[in-house]
Amino acid sequence: MSKYLSDRFSGLKEYIPGEQPRDRSYIKLNTNESPYPPSPSVLESVAEEADLLNLYSDPDCTALTEKFASLYGVKPSNVVFGNGSDEILNFCFMAFCDKNKGMAFPSISYGFYSVFAELYGIDYTAIELDDDFCIDINDYMNLDKNIVIANPNAPTGIALSLDSIEAIVKSNINNVVIIDEAYVDYGADSAVSLIDKYDNLIVVGTFSKSRSLAGARLGFAFANEELIRDLHKIRYSTNPYNINRLTLKAGESAIDENDYYMDNCKEIIATREKTAEELKSLGFSVLPSKTNFLFAKYSGDLGGKELYLKLKDEGILVRHFDKERINDYLRITIGTPEQMETFIQKLSKIINQ
Amino acid sequence: MSKYLSDRFSGLKEYIPGEQPRDRSYIKLNTNESPYPPSPSVLESVAEEADLLNLYSDPDCTALTEKFASLYGVKPSNVVFGNGSDEILNFCFMAFCDKNKGMAFPSISYGFYSVFAELYGIDYTAIELDDDFCIDINDYMNLDKNIVIANPNAPTGIALSLDSIEAIVKSNINNVVIIDEAYVDYGADSAVSLIDKYDNLIVVGTFSKSRSLAGARLGFAFANEELIRDLHKIRYSTNPYNINRLTLKAGESAIDENDYYMDNCKEIIATREKTAEELKSLGFSVLPSKTNFLFAKYSGDLGGKELYLKLKDEGILVRHFDKERINDYLRITIGTPEQMETFIQKLSKIINQ
Repeated sequence: MSKYLSDRFSGLKEYIPGEQPRDRSYIKLNTNESPYPPSPSVLESVAEEADLLNLYSDPDCTALTEKFASLYGVKPSNVVFGNGSDEILNFCFMAFCDKNKGMAFPSISYGFYSVFAELYGIDYTAIELDDDFCIDINDYMNLDKNIVIANPNAPTGIALSLDSIEAIVKSNINNVVIIDEAYVDYGADSAVSLIDKYDNLIVVGTFSKSRSLAGARLGFAFANEELIRDLHKIRYSTNPYNINRLTLKAGESAIDENDYYMDNCKEIIATREKTAEELKSLGFSVLPSKTNFLFAKYSGDLGGKELYLKLKDEGILVRHFDKERINDYLRITIGTPEQMETFIQKLSKIINQ
Repeated sequence: MSKYLSDRFSGLKEYIPGEQPRDRSYIKLNTNESPYPPSPSVLESVAEEADLLNLYSDPDCTALTEKFASLYGVKPSNVVFGNGSDEILNFCFMAFCDKNKGMAFPSISYGFYSVFAELYGIDYTAIELDDDFCIDINDYMNLDKNIVIANPNAPTGIALSLDSIEAIVKSNINNVVIIDEAYVDYGADSAVSLIDKYDNLIVVGTFSKSRSLAGARLGFAFANEELIRDLHKIRYSTNPYNINRLTLKAGESAIDENDYYMDNCKEIIATREKTAEELKSLGFSVLPSKTNFLFAKYSGDLGGKELYLKLKDEGILVRHFDKERINDYLRITIGTPEQMETFIQKLSKIINQ
């Protein structure tokens, strides 16, 4: 760090995204992208819009917001968009988390939550998962802290029921509860249906996974109007034109072709279940996933890091976390059936060597 | 605001971007966009890249950074990109401006500086411009505060010489000096040549104006490696994938076709000088601009707001600031020669009514 950097960042450890090596071509099962390309009209609308790039984008995201609100049966005033859901989470931490008011989230979850908390000097509590890597909702009752929960959780893939989410939201009515639903379209229940009922609920989502737009950066939040206005206030105080023209159009087209994306989700769920069975036959324990990835541990004498490195040698990238309790696990993104077949073949070969 | 919003934002007034009315079609001379479309290869590369939107963008912006560094004769480690230069400015305010360390900038300048300062609770001093709306560099010597100066300044359009910038940077070596060069390509001198000489200098720029990419959101900073590392630390702690795939490609293509954009700048400079003369003949005083806009005041009995409204009625949008000292001025973006001819015709008509 330079001598000019504010002292409060001296201990800050930034988030480390999944690796993007360029030394060779890999089957990329490490960053939970969709293996399916965007729908045809996304390509067309982006190409058309490029001619207007000399003009600023609509800071209110009017057309996109109206389409999206209509798809989810909410009002446009219940929606805000971000440059990826990371930006939305950043806005939430900035807006609602005072330094002195604590923040709570599961100890094993999206690695960015603790980075945001440290960035803003927010006191946080990382709550342990139970022995089965599940969130015990009793740990989240009446916490007197703001709460963020990924549902389904990552990297475990395990989902809470809507009733459990509602119980947490209800028991923390004086604090904001953020439900991060990046992976919800792969089989979990969204809490969006609860935003009219609870003033303290923010549901965060992304077009990066189920809608094949990781490279376009489009995240969103649903909440009651007051919370959304607060998030707009932060957005207009940091970056009003946060969504570029091309991403606006890509998002609109993706909404128009929602069936294509929901069919892809079904395909990925089927591939996930097949892959989980195959992993089990190879001697893995596999957590029950409602996401587009599997979190799995080998029962044999190869550790998580070893397996990760051997798979990388074979041209397959998965994600390994060098972290207590989970360092023998691999997080494996679900690709196409063909990619997963290759993955299982290579993995069998490694194990049988 | 909701009851959940942090108390520190209770008085925060967000930035208000130039209006984007949709009630009719206007000649838009109000947000300093380029009237010229992006170059042909921007359109092609964006259309090609759309097929890969299911994959995350490169968080290191490797290809873009290399091309851009090479164009400016600096090292890739001297460059960081943002989702527009607003994001870069946000990073700078966050990284270097402690609450207790003051910040200084001209009282008439880009309206976002005070918004950032208020967002982060930074004590700031807004320094008056002199009687000719110029920055008096004596006001910025040995300030013991971080400093941000738009050069050329907005909305005045007036530029400081490189010597003046260097004097400010040199006399504030224990503080960061940010030079915001959004409009530098229309005739001012860039301070990028000084980044190796001064550890405390950050030069901020954008592809929104001279490079016709306002709608793609691409800003940047040049500085020595240590400051750039600090900015990357903040970037990786808020939004590592801040630049989307399409904007990365648009930026690369714009760099490849740099001559097209620099020729457009020459055209705009010529149109600006012609428009300035015409405004003077109509009885306006016009500040000497090194930007793609003019800041002008009518000597007759029509006030700034009145003129702005009458022009809007005529289908021409310019920017009016309801602010002390400048509320009789209009900020007029330079469009195509044809647009400016229409503007002058309508303005003559209004004045002669």
